[in-house]
Amino acid sequence: MFSATCVAPVNMALVKYWGKRNEELILPINDSISMTLDANEMSAKTTVAASESFKQNRMWLNGEVVPFEENARLMRCLEGVQRLALANGDIKFPLSWKLHIASYNNFPTAAGLASSAAGYACLVYTLARLYEIPMNEQLTTIARQGSGSACRSLHGGFVQWHRGAADDGSDSFAEQLVTAEHWPNMHMLILVVNDARKKTGSTKGMQLAVKTSTLIQHRAKEIVPRRIKELRTAIQERDFKAFAEITMKDSNQLHAIALDTYPPCVYMNDVSHAIVNFVHDYNESVGSVQAAYTFDAGPNGCIYVQAENVPRLLAAIQVAFPNDAQQSVEYLKGIPVPPVELSKVATNGSAGHVNPKNMLKYIIHTKIGEGPRQLSDEKSLLIDGLPLLK
Amino acid sequence: MFSATCVAPVNMALVKYWGKRNEELILPINDSISMTLDANEMSAKTTVAASESFKQNRMWLNGEVVPFEENARLMRCLEGVQRLALANGDIKFPLSWKLHIASYNNFPTAAGLASSAAGYACLVYTLARLYEIPMNEQLTTIARQGSGSACRSLHGGFVQWHRGAADDGSDSFAEQLVTAEHWPNMHMLILVVNDARKKTGSTKGMQLAVKTSTLIQHRAKEIVPRRIKELRTAIQERDFKAFAEITMKDSNQLHAIALDTYPPCVYMNDVSHAIVNFVHDYNESVGSVQAAYTFDAGPNGCIYVQAENVPRLLAAIQVAFPNDAQQSVEYLKGIPVPPVELSKVATNGSAGHVNPKNMLKYIIHTKIGEGPRQLSDEKSLLIDGLPLLK
Repeated sequence: MFSATCVAPVNMALVKYWGKRNEELILPINDSISMTLDANEMSAKTTVAASESFKQNRMWLNGEVVPFEENARLMRCLEGVQRLALANGDIKFPLSWKLHIASYNNFPTAAGLASSAAGYACLVYTLARLYEIPMNEQLTTIARQGSGSACRSLHGGFVQWHRGAADDGSDSFAEQLVTAEHWPNMHMLILVVNDARKKTGSTKGMQLAVKTSTLIQHRAKEIVPRRIKELRTAIQERDFKAFAEITMKDSNQLHAIALDTYPPCVYMNDVSHAIVNFVHDYNESVGSVQAAYTFDAGPNGCIYVQAENVPRLLAAIQVAFPNDAQQSVEYLKGIPVPPVELSKVATNGSAGHVNPKNMLKYIIHTKIGEGPRQLSDEKSLLIDGLPLLK
Repeated sequence: MFSATCVAPVNMALVKYWGKRNEELILPINDSISMTLDANEMSAKTTVAASESFKQNRMWLNGEVVPFEENARLMRCLEGVQRLALANGDIKFPLSWKLHIASYNNFPTAAGLASSAAGYACLVYTLARLYEIPMNEQLTTIARQGSGSACRSLHGGFVQWHRGAADDGSDSFAEQLVTAEHWPNMHMLILVVNDARKKTGSTKGMQLAVKTSTLIQHRAKEIVPRRIKELRTAIQERDFKAFAEITMKDSNQLHAIALDTYPPCVYMNDVSHAIVNFVHDYNESVGSVQAAYTFDAGPNGCIYVQAENVPRLLAAIQVAFPNDAQQSVEYLKGIPVPPVELSKVATNGSAGHVNPKNMLKYIIHTKIGEGPRQLSDEKSLLIDGLPLLK
């Protein structure tokens, strides 16, 4: 039996991916840029084992059996990596050996935070380790076929997913722009929002948008290329103000396109918009742009903030979004934050606005992080080919 | 003393006006089309009196003294009508005589329903009656300078406001497309929503949008002209399905543009979006497009529906948006609706979704209506030049 166990991070887009030009190959209509988040706070962990004795391909996700050969996206990833392995030559065991795969997310799926990106990145990376394929950009084109944004989770730091031009998707890959060390103090507060509404999934939402929005092509062709260029410069220069404005504008535009879809797709709710207002008011009250929100296909607010500004921002959030669980470890997850004196949080003008209680479910504090990495065998999620009970 | 008293209706846009190319002259970046609403349910009423004995220009709005000569928009309307009067010759009294103006809205301003359109339309129409100027399209270019959409309230039925091309705004006027008799069974339910959030006014929201949205010019140049053409055809042919889809899509796009503004302007709230979902679900459950929502710069939902479909739609609204005041006359304002058997309301699928209680403040039932009209002198709002206590 051969096996490999790896972890892969979540990533959060700054210039957003929204809309495919090819549904099957998952080719986007525009480039996107993301930041990879620290795998210590949120990650997928996967073990893949191959054995002559396995009768069939099997997979467990978070301890539950899930379909394998019926899952076209999973099969495309497996076949992609196996093709690379063949091209590489020198395989330790026959490709005909069946696989057992176990995968866990270390963060609650209820958070609505894109778990599929980390999951497919981890799957592809772990398969590559199993077949001893060195990390290369072709792996990102394979992960992309599992879940589009998964390709960005194969790198750490800031990452650009190129839309590419080829019909076969071979040039639609993810490129690392800078490593996490380039901007190590880039942190994030994730404000997880209570929400019970029926929502359109992002795959369906994108399809509908491409089909019905009369603004989406203009965005993809005219607006995004400019923003990608500007954001690359802002990242290179560690220019937080420029970074923040592009990020907030592009988050707003993603949701504008979703709203221009017919029937409209609405992912942000009143609490999300209260977070938007809070961030604009906060930046105004501190006299500089210190916080930048972004929202994916859900109501949770992700706020970029540099490490030195986290304590004050968090304290202001606690004032603006009071919560009965405010001081508990279940409410404040992730990297610990030193408390600040409340007098230092004093804000002026509308930044003093206090929202009704318990609008947030909890807060996660995380930061920029590295790409996937392999773990030692004793971290395996499979014992004798069967998943650990967790 | 000479005086005139008139009423003017509210209008509700289908293809929306959002963005000016000239702030002072109120010239829009795109054409818009609206339906004029019955003045019996919602209207402005204005009396203008001129007398040799008046010492100064004075105005009362809803019984309160308001500035006159300091109000640039008001003065532009007055000067515009006086210029027409001079050109007309044959004036019964010197233009130097001071004016007293009293104006009332017969609907609660709390409804967030554009009262300024009816107000300025009524002002200009009443001034024109006072100076005996026949109704003509130049009056619409004058009303436009009070409040952009006021120009559309000078006609009944369906009305198109042409953006025009001239720098002086002389060709930016409102044209009646068809009279109210063309589509007499066009009705509307206005769902007035509870809302307490801070909002950006529409003047400021438009300015910010023109300045910061990277989608608004594409909308104005590429999307709106097509929709105007299609909507004109739908109105001519009384094609409710085409009418409804253009209307809903353009409402969504207005709010998409507002969201693409920086900082974003958000006018719809969670209840507004619940209304949107309800309408799509309702149309699906009855198997044809019978209802079409539109939202202005506020959270209230305006639903177009043909008279024969009102009872069933209203009953479904009462089920989906339960309210403690459901049966009271204060809750159901406007044209009475015959009750329907609940069994006829039975809906299938997600149309059965019931929202939390008391999301709506009240409902107004109204319909398509005529343009402004003059009332007899005994309806005057001024007695001896001073406003009636109401």
